[in-house]
Amino acid sequence: MSFILPSESIDGTHPCNGLHMNGQDSLVQPLLTDFYQITMCYAYWKTGTHNEPAVFDVFFRKNPFQGEFTVFAGLEDCLRFVENFKFSQSDIDYVKKILPENAEPEFYEYLETLNGSHLTIEAVAEGSVVFPKVPLLTINGPLAMCQLIETSILNLVNYASLVATNAARFRQASGWKIQLLEFGLRRAQGPNGGLTASKYCYIGGFDATSNVLAGKLYGIPVKGTQAHSFICSFSSPAELKVRLLNHKITNEKADLFQISMEKRAWLLDQFSWKAALSEVSDGELSAFVAYAIAFPDTFLALIDTYDVIRSGVVNFVAVSLALHDLGYRSMGCRIDSGDLSYLSKELRECFVKVSTLKGEYKFFEKMSIVASNDINEETIMSLNDQQHEINAFGVGTHLVTCQKQPALGCVYKLVAQSAQPKIKLSQDVTKITIPGKKKCYRIFGKNGYAILDLMMLEDEPEPQPNQQILCRHPFEESKRALVNANKIIKLHNVYWKDGEMITPLPTLNEIKEHVNESIRSTLRQDHRRYLNPTPYKVSVSERLYQFLHTLWLQNAPIGQLE
Amino acid sequence: MSFILPSESIDGTHPCNGLHMNGQDSLVQPLLTDFYQITMCYAYWKTGTHNEPAVFDVFFRKNPFQGEFTVFAGLEDCLRFVENFKFSQSDIDYVKKILPENAEPEFYEYLETLNGSHLTIEAVAEGSVVFPKVPLLTINGPLAMCQLIETSILNLVNYASLVATNAARFRQASGWKIQLLEFGLRRAQGPNGGLTASKYCYIGGFDATSNVLAGKLYGIPVKGTQAHSFICSFSSPAELKVRLLNHKITNEKADLFQISMEKRAWLLDQFSWKAALSEVSDGELSAFVAYAIAFPDTFLALIDTYDVIRSGVVNFVAVSLALHDLGYRSMGCRIDSGDLSYLSKELRECFVKVSTLKGEYKFFEKMSIVASNDINEETIMSLNDQQHEINAFGVGTHLVTCQKQPALGCVYKLVAQSAQPKIKLSQDVTKITIPGKKKCYRIFGKNGYAILDLMMLEDEPEPQPNQQILCRHPFEESKRALVNANKIIKLHNVYWKDGEMITPLPTLNEIKEHVNESIRSTLRQDHRRYLNPTPYKVSVSERLYQFLHTLWLQNAPIGQLE
Repeated sequence: MSFILPSESIDGTHPCNGLHMNGQDSLVQPLLTDFYQITMCYAYWKTGTHNEPAVFDVFFRKNPFQGEFTVFAGLEDCLRFVENFKFSQSDIDYVKKILPENAEPEFYEYLETLNGSHLTIEAVAEGSVVFPKVPLLTINGPLAMCQLIETSILNLVNYASLVATNAARFRQASGWKIQLLEFGLRRAQGPNGGLTASKYCYIGGFDATSNVLAGKLYGIPVKGTQAHSFICSFSSPAELKVRLLNHKITNEKADLFQISMEKRAWLLDQFSWKAALSEVSDGELSAFVAYAIAFPDTFLALIDTYDVIRSGVVNFVAVSLALHDLGYRSMGCRIDSGDLSYLSKELRECFVKVSTLKGEYKFFEKMSIVASNDINEETIMSLNDQQHEINAFGVGTHLVTCQKQPALGCVYKLVAQSAQPKIKLSQDVTKITIPGKKKCYRIFGKNGYAILDLMMLEDEPEPQPNQQILCRHPFEESKRALVNANKIIKLHNVYWKDGEMITPLPTLNEIKEHVNESIRSTLRQDHRRYLNPTPYKVSVSERLYQFLHTLWLQNAPIGQLE
Repeated sequence: MSFILPSESIDGTHPCNGLHMNGQDSLVQPLLTDFYQITMCYAYWKTGTHNEPAVFDVFFRKNPFQGEFTVFAGLEDCLRFVENFKFSQSDIDYVKKILPENAEPEFYEYLETLNGSHLTIEAVAEGSVVFPKVPLLTINGPLAMCQLIETSILNLVNYASLVATNAARFRQASGWKIQLLEFGLRRAQGPNGGLTASKYCYIGGFDATSNVLAGKLYGIPVKGTQAHSFICSFSSPAELKVRLLNHKITNEKADLFQISMEKRAWLLDQFSWKAALSEVSDGELSAFVAYAIAFPDTFLALIDTYDVIRSGVVNFVAVSLALHDLGYRSMGCRIDSGDLSYLSKELRECFVKVSTLKGEYKFFEKMSIVASNDINEETIMSLNDQQHEINAFGVGTHLVTCQKQPALGCVYKLVAQSAQPKIKLSQDVTKITIPGKKKCYRIFGKNGYAILDLMMLEDEPEPQPNQQILCRHPFEESKRALVNANKIIKLHNVYWKDGEMITPLPTLNEIKEHVNESIRSTLRQDHRRYLNPTPYKVSVSERLYQFLHTLWLQNAPIGQLE
């Protein structure tokens, strides 16, 4: 069901779906990195460790928005970045300028040879629900090359996952009957911040975007109505230059403004409105008529420019009934200010009354109400409590800026080098990395929901369903559980190896569907809920536990007290 | 003074400075807009008002970050967008898909003809301090064309101004002796979110960025050191494959690792350290030596991987003294965790002690200390209170995401059409627009600071210095003041007219300098301060006041009580 001017529905087979044509390619390039990656690369090269085989994990330490889940997004962007990784001559020239003059010239020859062909990238499927500490991606390859791509990978994963998670939370809050529309372009971090937001909000659970370029590049449905400036542009009927509209069936010309005026007078007689004719704006009626003449089949009016109850709704119903006389059907109205719960209920009550005036007006009771204006998760939940009558939310600022938490702290940590495990210690236990190359599983219980994620050492035997598996908290010694799995899913696939994409990438719509499916099958209601959600368990095998703690003790220096 | 590996200093004449080569051009295009701009455009066209001359103001209603000033940025981006505005054939084809099938084909011919040649754009100089309600830009031109560019203009101004303001606030908090480094790429909204952040943080008062692409495209100095992964990559001296470094002057080869080990042993004997030799990590020493061999002249070490006091500082001083023996000078150290105030003071105390060990170690007392880790305005002010010893801050997340307020609410409002003023009413007085085309002045008092901004009607005589000017609060009747100006500056210039840029655009470094100058000359200390700053006054002339209030009454419908 489409409430606002619909775009052609485009499925995942749209030729523009996929990063090659996303307009970002010119920016996702080797120099989109922190300078220290290049200085470290030089130091590795200079001291001869640049080609040592290394393993880096990408993970985060805490779910965003005080929630207990995260939606992983940005994988395709990372893979395309690696696929296209190549320093251009002008890049090399620039690097020469910013490194010290005495850097060795052979280093630049080395940089020129670099590409993604020696990397192997394993990752969780894009759109999966993920949890702290479990690697989203594991990058294997020459130490210096792995290091060089850190910043770009983090840049591509962090915001994509954050905003997809935010969108999924809006979807959880609003339920499935509501249409969610992303209106954030004007508040995003520049042009491509806006594009990224539109793409990943769609994946996370939004139905459409107002961003036309995102529609063109990614095949996302685009929606939109009108702004207050359109309404203000008609101060009086004198500014309405065109009034005629052809009847949809008979093609006969009719004066839509005249009919709307008549409908309005008639309506105000039919039942007791909260508006008097003197309060209803004629300029607003003129603007609605102008828009209806342009979009008679998809008329949707912004009704809060003057006063929703004392003007907007009267004019909207009048024009809608006039359109109805000419064979067209209005789509609905939008409110962008005021008490959205109260107004939506007043509107619904009015629409229901209108629907009883004549048999042919029955359609009016289901007239769509779109609400916007600083909407966030909390607003939606409060509106739910008040049993609002809204059919679609337009969300901008809070969605794309992720106001509640504008950054996801993904990190990129070295966990092995030359077959030796590496551990990053910290006085803060939550910041200690889990060393070594790992394999990760999601373990499902009898009720179909996931019980926990389990990380193991690479050479351990695969965990089997219907056998007791000992799962341990990575750091808290006493937290252990025996788990009898009903189903076990391996979390990682190899996506990129030997210079090739070896796992086919899903379309945008497939990723969107996977988000939905992953949330539904992974998260019990108590993990999903807004207030004090239950943390989902992330555990390690007994062997990984011992391995981690042995290495920790080996690396932590022994203090000396006297 | 440069603390971290310096890039070549590039001034504003860098050929890449300016938007033509900024890598965003492919995204800043007509379709980077909300769909409703296109539907409204069609409705204007369809009902014949599309070419009516219109005036739109771009302004915001509230300064961000609970402050009382905003830095205006993004102007050049807007002008380049208008300069290049042209629907491509593929754009038109896409618009055909998303508008209703029965839209008139002539509309697409009209779209093809659209460009910026009939627009006139007036604006405040980029980098100026600006205040609520005063137009940042005024766009004059055909109604539909002005409407079409709304979203792109807002997208380009909103985040640029927000992040430039944030950067300026960091600069206010830290003072001028501190070097400010932007490290936000990995937390920004995608690739171009990161680029935009780097550019406007530089304008706002940062000295350098870690973002190499921003360095290449905009000529901003880039800085960087090393990450924890570099330190972790050396677990023990066995992993250090190269140990030799040539003496800077004699070119004689020396074993830097060996000398560093000797220096370390010697140092621990010289005075009472808080570390014992058994606690000092040999892996860390190896990593420092590797980095020092690569960058002997710009050695800067990350010293918190193990323990700043018990390991990092000892190794850092040891390697620095070894480098000194070979004719090189270290640049400093970075701490990325822990109590930054305490650690910086401990470090300084240690460096001062080292500087007294030998006459030639005198340089050590001024050794640079760089601090990073979740730094925000409040952290900096707290560190100031504690009399920290930090020389440079590296700031990422809080800076680029503008965590405290991640969106500036710039709006784009119709204020005149066909020579008639337009007003947008609202029950919320702060949301009422100030109608008509206006001219705006900044009025300076005897002490050199600005007193207030004044908006007037276009046809009023210019205000003159040393004459009484009546300035009124736009909405509060009783708030009036007579002002005797010492100096008056007209706030707007015409930048774009008849398809041409008619005011030369400043370079990035000129804009940066203007930010500094504008803050200094406009804002008294009480407007700038962090806690409860005094609001800067924005006023209207007596005539504009009367004009606004007459129009308000004309447009507000009279309620009917019985």
